[in-house]
Amino acid sequence: MRTVVRGGLVVNATGAAPADVLVEGERIAALAAPDAGLTDGWAAAADRVVDATGRYVLPGGVDAHTHMEMPFGGTTSSDTFATGTVAAAWGGTTTIVDFAVQAKGTSVLSTLDEWHAKADGQCAVDYGFHMIVSDVNDNSLKEMDACVAAGVSSFKLFMAYPGVLYATDGDILRAMRQATGNGALIMMHAENGIAIDQLVARALAEGRTAPVEHGLTRPPELEAEATGRAIQLAGVTGAPLYIVHLSSAPALAAVSQARDAGQNVFAETCPQYLFLSIEDLARPGFEGAKFVCSPPLRPVEHQAPLWRGLRTNDLSVVSTDHCPFCFAEQKELGRGDFSRIPNGMPGVEHRMDLLHQGVLAGELSLARWVEVASTTPARMFGLYPRKGVIAPGSDADIVVYDPTATQTLSAATHHMNVDYSAYEGMEITGKVDTVLSRGRVVLADDTFTGAAGHGRFLRRDLCQYLH
Amino acid sequence: MRTVVRGGLVVNATGAAPADVLVEGERIAALAAPDAGLTDGWAAAADRVVDATGRYVLPGGVDAHTHMEMPFGGTTSSDTFATGTVAAAWGGTTTIVDFAVQAKGTSVLSTLDEWHAKADGQCAVDYGFHMIVSDVNDNSLKEMDACVAAGVSSFKLFMAYPGVLYATDGDILRAMRQATGNGALIMMHAENGIAIDQLVARALAEGRTAPVEHGLTRPPELEAEATGRAIQLAGVTGAPLYIVHLSSAPALAAVSQARDAGQNVFAETCPQYLFLSIEDLARPGFEGAKFVCSPPLRPVEHQAPLWRGLRTNDLSVVSTDHCPFCFAEQKELGRGDFSRIPNGMPGVEHRMDLLHQGVLAGELSLARWVEVASTTPARMFGLYPRKGVIAPGSDADIVVYDPTATQTLSAATHHMNVDYSAYEGMEITGKVDTVLSRGRVVLADDTFTGAAGHGRFLRRDLCQYLH
Amino acid sequence: MRTVVRGGLVVNATGAAPADVLVEGERIAALAAPDAGLTDGWAAAADRVVDATGRYVLPGGVDAHTHMEMPFGGTTSSDTFATGTVAAAWGGTTTIVDFAVQAKGTSVLSTLDEWHAKADGQCAVDYGFHMIVSDVNDNSLKEMDACVAAGVSSFKLFMAYPGVLYATDGDILRAMRQATGNGALIMMHAENGIAIDQLVARALAEGRTAPVEHGLTRPPELEAEATGRAIQLAGVTGAPLYIVHLSSAPALAAVSQARDAGQNVFAETCPQYLFLSIEDLARPGFEGAKFVCSPPLRPVEHQAPLWRGLRTNDLSVVSTDHCPFCFAEQKELGRGDFSRIPNGMPGVEHRMDLLHQGVLAGELSLARWVEVASTTPARMFGLYPRKGVIAPGSDADIVVYDPTATQTLSAATHHMNVDYSAYEGMEITGKVDTVLSRGRVVLADDTFTGAAGHGRFLRRDLCQYLH
Amino acid sequence: MRTVVRGGLVVNATGAAPADVLVEGERIAALAAPDAGLTDGWAAAADRVVDATGRYVLPGGVDAHTHMEMPFGGTTSSDTFATGTVAAAWGGTTTIVDFAVQAKGTSVLSTLDEWHAKADGQCAVDYGFHMIVSDVNDNSLKEMDACVAAGVSSFKLFMAYPGVLYATDGDILRAMRQATGNGALIMMHAENGIAIDQLVARALAEGRTAPVEHGLTRPPELEAEATGRAIQLAGVTGAPLYIVHLSSAPALAAVSQARDAGQNVFAETCPQYLFLSIEDLARPGFEGAKFVCSPPLRPVEHQAPLWRGLRTNDLSVVSTDHCPFCFAEQKELGRGDFSRIPNGMPGVEHRMDLLHQGVLAGELSLARWVEVASTTPARMFGLYPRKGVIAPGSDADIVVYDPTATQTLSAATHHMNVDYSAYEGMEITGKVDTVLSRGRVVLADDTFTGAAGHGRFLRRDLCQYLH
Repeated sequence: MRTVVRGGLVVNATGAAPADVLVEGERIAALAAPDAGLTDGWAAAADRVVDATGRYVLPGGVDAHTHMEMPFGGTTSSDTFATGTVAAAWGGTTTIVDFAVQAKGTSVLSTLDEWHAKADGQCAVDYGFHMIVSDVNDNSLKEMDACVAAGVSSFKLFMAYPGVLYATDGDILRAMRQATGNGALIMMHAENGIAIDQLVARALAEGRTAPVEHGLTRPPELEAEATGRAIQLAGVTGAPLYIVHLSSAPALAAVSQARDAGQNVFAETCPQYLFLSIEDLARPGFEGAKFVCSPPLRPVEHQAPLWRGLRTNDLSVVSTDHCPFCFAEQKELGRGDFSRIPNGMPGVEHRMDLLHQGVLAGELSLARWVEVASTTPARMFGLYPRKGVIAPGSDADIVVYDPTATQTLSAATHHMNVDYSAYEGMEITGKVDTVLSRGRVVLADDTFTGAAGHGRFLRRDLCQYLH
Repeated sequence: MRTVVRGGLVVNATGAAPADVLVEGERIAALAAPDAGLTDGWAAAADRVVDATGRYVLPGGVDAHTHMEMPFGGTTSSDTFATGTVAAAWGGTTTIVDFAVQAKGTSVLSTLDEWHAKADGQCAVDYGFHMIVSDVNDNSLKEMDACVAAGVSSFKLFMAYPGVLYATDGDILRAMRQATGNGALIMMHAENGIAIDQLVARALAEGRTAPVEHGLTRPPELEAEATGRAIQLAGVTGAPLYIVHLSSAPALAAVSQARDAGQNVFAETCPQYLFLSIEDLARPGFEGAKFVCSPPLRPVEHQAPLWRGLRTNDLSVVSTDHCPFCFAEQKELGRGDFSRIPNGMPGVEHRMDLLHQGVLAGELSLARWVEVASTTPARMFGLYPRKGVIAPGSDADIVVYDPTATQTLSAATHHMNVDYSAYEGMEITGKVDTVLSRGRVVLADDTFTGAAGHGRFLRRDLCQYLH
Repeated sequence: MRTVVRGGLVVNATGAAPADVLVEGERIAALAAPDAGLTDGWAAAADRVVDATGRYVLPGGVDAHTHMEMPFGGTTSSDTFATGTVAAAWGGTTTIVDFAVQAKGTSVLSTLDEWHAKADGQCAVDYGFHMIVSDVNDNSLKEMDACVAAGVSSFKLFMAYPGVLYATDGDILRAMRQATGNGALIMMHAENGIAIDQLVARALAEGRTAPVEHGLTRPPELEAEATGRAIQLAGVTGAPLYIVHLSSAPALAAVSQARDAGQNVFAETCPQYLFLSIEDLARPGFEGAKFVCSPPLRPVEHQAPLWRGLRTNDLSVVSTDHCPFCFAEQKELGRGDFSRIPNGMPGVEHRMDLLHQGVLAGELSLARWVEVASTTPARMFGLYPRKGVIAPGSDADIVVYDPTATQTLSAATHHMNVDYSAYEGMEITGKVDTVLSRGRVVLADDTFTGAAGHGRFLRRDLCQYLH
Repeated sequence: MRTVVRGGLVVNATGAAPADVLVEGERIAALAAPDAGLTDGWAAAADRVVDATGRYVLPGGVDAHTHMEMPFGGTTSSDTFATGTVAAAWGGTTTIVDFAVQAKGTSVLSTLDEWHAKADGQCAVDYGFHMIVSDVNDNSLKEMDACVAAGVSSFKLFMAYPGVLYATDGDILRAMRQATGNGALIMMHAENGIAIDQLVARALAEGRTAPVEHGLTRPPELEAEATGRAIQLAGVTGAPLYIVHLSSAPALAAVSQARDAGQNVFAETCPQYLFLSIEDLARPGFEGAKFVCSPPLRPVEHQAPLWRGLRTNDLSVVSTDHCPFCFAEQKELGRGDFSRIPNGMPGVEHRMDLLHQGVLAGELSLARWVEVASTTPARMFGLYPRKGVIAPGSDADIVVYDPTATQTLSAATHHMNVDYSAYEGMEITGKVDTVLSRGRVVLADDTFTGAAGHGRFLRRDLCQYLH
């Protein structure tokens, strides 16, 4: 199978230039200047020629934070690997890195097997795994080394969710030390869950049960605190650290301070923290439940610092933390008790489009858009140059993006398996036109043309920001 | 003229991958994966095939800070555009951005004409100009707009050298405001020259005349002060700011603080601040004169923060501030009075090699080496993607670099027109093997094969880090 | 003359306690616990007994920043030493430290003589002098030593007012170095006058001439810049530094950062920055001229940080910068050109009362009120324990203050020689009841009972915060 | 009983002045200027006249952090209230605030009763209690209110010592919230005990058992972390916070940052952190056990920042954390396992003398010495003006201090009930001459003249730094 993408503006992380792309099989064989006289010959011999005139040619998006069919609070996130990766493809994301979740008392490696079983043969686009270590012990620490060897080179720990996923500071220290040995990257959910539980208990005791209380009982100070603590613990061990879903200005300040001092600390934020706010969580009735995720949506004044952090690179990545729960039957578990609302929001489909709004608003340059959405996550999680760049030899994960098309986000039209949209009715400028995943056109002419099982597991190398 | 560079590891700013490069005329026509089956055909039709096996294929270095044949203190820097650009080529630098120097009472545009006359027909590699504005007035401000239109989109001001190049804070404000209108980038020599002059006068009055006094009378505090002041003035006007040759930890802290706050402030450092120190300035006899530049070499403890700044991107660029003066007859003007030693050091030839030592020492990644030495200066000064990247359509400025060869730096072997080396006897691992400048092989087999006049003036666009 | 003040609550800088005070001649002879059985005997032998029941007994206020009959911009501040010190007494201030102003080209010591001549025999309360050095040269530097010997141990320099009072950074360095030798304290008016002049020229060129432009052309960034610069220059020399009339949050941040690092940097603010804002400067018509002072009144959001700075001791002193000009004929010089409005506001009379509002609002504790208004300025400027404390042996400068009385500030009732009040109509809780100056009752029963010439020149020692 | 102390230099927190002191019964009746003509009369009628010529007259020291006869790790600190308060008196400390320790599962109020029983009738000088709350629950929270009413207005929590005294972050939040209601001050032992336990376990597992490992397993980062965490938790609740025994530069930085932001955060350090270092902990053999306390002694470079913090007031108090264990039989419990060495050092006797060395070295002014050692702890813990100042009406806790006498510290001569001195052989300039405790001479002529039971329990008010 040979495809040529011609006429477009190739956008990589350092800038844009017109170039034509020759795809052979699953990889990019060559790039040529449009006027170099090579493309006509390529096109003549191609099975398919994609006309990208007037469009951007982007490396496929890399969403480094998704939770497909994840068990949480007695229910399961509503997208399967099958449905979720189709939605990703629709949105121009051709790689996801999902989280395998070790349950307390179980083995890390058997957890990995379990997740492989879930995803194998199901995915429309390529996927990798991070491992959530919820039970740090001698055995699981050893298994971390085996995970790295198996291409799972990042481990997430939780400072939140006591009794479920919570790791003590001692657990964290041990896991970090293991990571300094095997080169893995420690990812952290940085909220002080012990303190939060106390605030939650008090709110419930006082009869404050509405969804907005989810936000009020998880104040930014407790995210900043945990972020700072994780940084100090990392400093003690020398381990690198990646803060997931950073949501607030003071947590960002903690990251910024550590980075200025040269510590290997990285952070991602998510579109919901850039575009939504605690006002959404406070919508009338139980509507706010749709916006319950952790960390919670913040007062709107946190948005500008987050955009600034994306520019200063104190925030290096935008992931989605995609973890959808249907409003009916799932979110509704928390009627009358916000603490029982499943935590998570849908988002894997809209990341590229939402960030493009930031480009149009002058918050990000075109190159920076590609960098935070594709190149940096690929480099951060050991996938570059296979992913994250339009270059010869790279996987042919290519998104042809129309920067002037318009669309309206809606549950009626999205492809995620969830009964609401967090961005219902939002007008978007820009739209994915065509998507190639490892050389196969999986989306074109508003039609999904891929297949479950096309997506393959990615054995990841180590983080490339460390040396 | 068609050339193929094959078998090498192409290193761009985001990472490295094997790729073969097809050069047609002055530009890169195409890149192909080595196993894509295209290269043999290209090679067959090529005039020349460069074997890059085991070597890095780098975008040519961009040295954004040189001073060829610059008048200073009654003498002139010893490299002409002819000799200096040959030395640049030897060192893998295929673009320089030199400084035209408006003298007080003269016109900016006639200065530009004058510098064009100096460089035209002389250069071995491509070159651009920044404009030093030493006389800010209504006319020169208007001329700044004309400069931008003529491809000179950056203007340097001096907070040092009262009576010569010095701009008052009022001048700076006015120039910055002009820059906010025409999109130019203001570059700043940030040392408090007024205060320094007082310290110098006092040193001389007390009979302290040796070269090391040059360093002692220009303390880091006065660089930090001026850096902070330039940042505040930029903040008042909204202008972006680029601090040249940042040399000390407290000045870096000022930059870092401003960048954290989201201000458009950038900074470069130079190899001499990374590898040399005030100990060199304090060498016995008059030997220290070889190391007189401004800002001065600092105590050795400033080096680690500067390397860290390169990693954190608080320092975005490494330039040389190449401004050579021969020890004989030139540096010697300052025997008995350090203040009369011409300020400047040779360096244009060794930047890429010296930074490669940082790669080997683990201070920088391979990709970051290319980024600070080529990609970022190209983006910063409106030359990207013409320069700064190995990609189709870009100028074929290509360096084939042998990472394992060794060499010894010495005035006996270097190609700069200066009678000493600041790095005399230093053992280097890594060496430029072959250099293409706009498609022409200008260096190969240890022979310079280029020609004066091959290098062309680059009309630069605006800084690409702003929007 | 023997006086007993009995029944009151003595408030010193570390707290309050009931105590009776015996005054013999000019000094405090003894303090006794009310129940110690001593007071009745003292009272019996006293010439006068002041009943302080229900009142505070405070050390007399020390206003370390006044400008009586100061030449400025072709006119002279409207309070003489005679009228201004009477107003001070009315307000509970029993010591002022005024500024002698060396004109360019004149001698420091002859300036001091001149100021002695102005004040001698005129003052109602004690007074000292700081010296403004506007012409730093070999001679004036030597004269600084003589000033210290003559009890004038602090020297003010201006980074504002080019061509008039402006000192270059070189001048500042020299004066600071002199101060490190003679132990004096350098006081700094920290605004970047060179940059401001450019902003002023531009405003006038654009036809922006109203009083509010005075504020808009002196932005906080240029106060922060100059503050930071003064701090760095002080750091180079090792001299201590006292920032006068600090008005804005970013300038405070610069002070705070230096203090955290252990540098000997101090700052004062003034009531106008705590209670008024740029909104006053923007009052309709020419009314804003009443509020023209430098630094200018700031946006209201700067007030909270200043109050906080008083609590954290990053602001150590509250002085008035009393420098009144009548609206008629004086302020009016600037109709049609804000830059010609004489800079300065009246205030010496209201400092204690205004700060008491801060006590009532919970911004300051009772002890901190006394500390910033009396004790610290006395210690800072070498007057303690003569001034600044109610203790045996101290000068009997005593204010009996009624914390519950109310008054309304107004030009109709104030005692300053100026035709408007900056606080016209403001309701105040608290009022000075009785004032002793060196043992003499100078205010009682709403009657001034002092006399011109009672106040004596204070030969000051060195700053007591240094060692 | 009437005593006159005459001829001395009275040193209070804002400065020093000659004054004579009349003591009637337990309190200071009056102060007089030496030349006021009152002292002779007083002396004539006095039971005792203390000649303080050439000496300082200081308010008695207030040591706000002692642990007399405290159970710890299966043993008990070796000073009883009887022996410890005698030692305090010898050292010029006339007030201690000791810690009652609630054991898990017991009542706070019964704990207070227990401690009253221990101290009642035993103490040579006055004493108060803080309460350590080790079991935060609904009942103990209510009991906190009762404690405040009973004069115990400060509560200490531990972030260290899991399983013993450790409070979870939820516990801390609850206690802080209670404190915002009852006005109490929360004191924090800020070390991350959970993480430390992991480091300790690892050290022991690796066979690292020597006393110095106590220091190495409690790195400064884990003190800084806990300090920052306590500050954030305090911020969430609005509670004031007092960090006990701060020992390291990064923890100080956390305090400084919070204070700059205006948060009510205070900190104390101890003489051992100012004068000793981890080098002492690393003394040969088991000698280091003498220096085991928590936080541990730090590398010597932390000392200068701590002295600086005392000057900047980021450290407000110097207490001793006096908690002696004999080397024989007590410290020896940890031979072969540093984690079993009882934590604590003797110190109550030497605080005033050691800090006086700081005065002589120029680290502190005379006034600041009195402030950090007496006045501020009195104000901080609700004892002022009863304690902490030489003023009429205050308790007659008076120390006559000879600043020129010399002594050598040694276990052979000290009065604490412990078999070693941490300062063995140290030469001291300055010595306590005479001590009055509530009007009674308890030390004079190198003889203790007080009595067990003279010291009374002090019902403390609330912290006076809050309003």
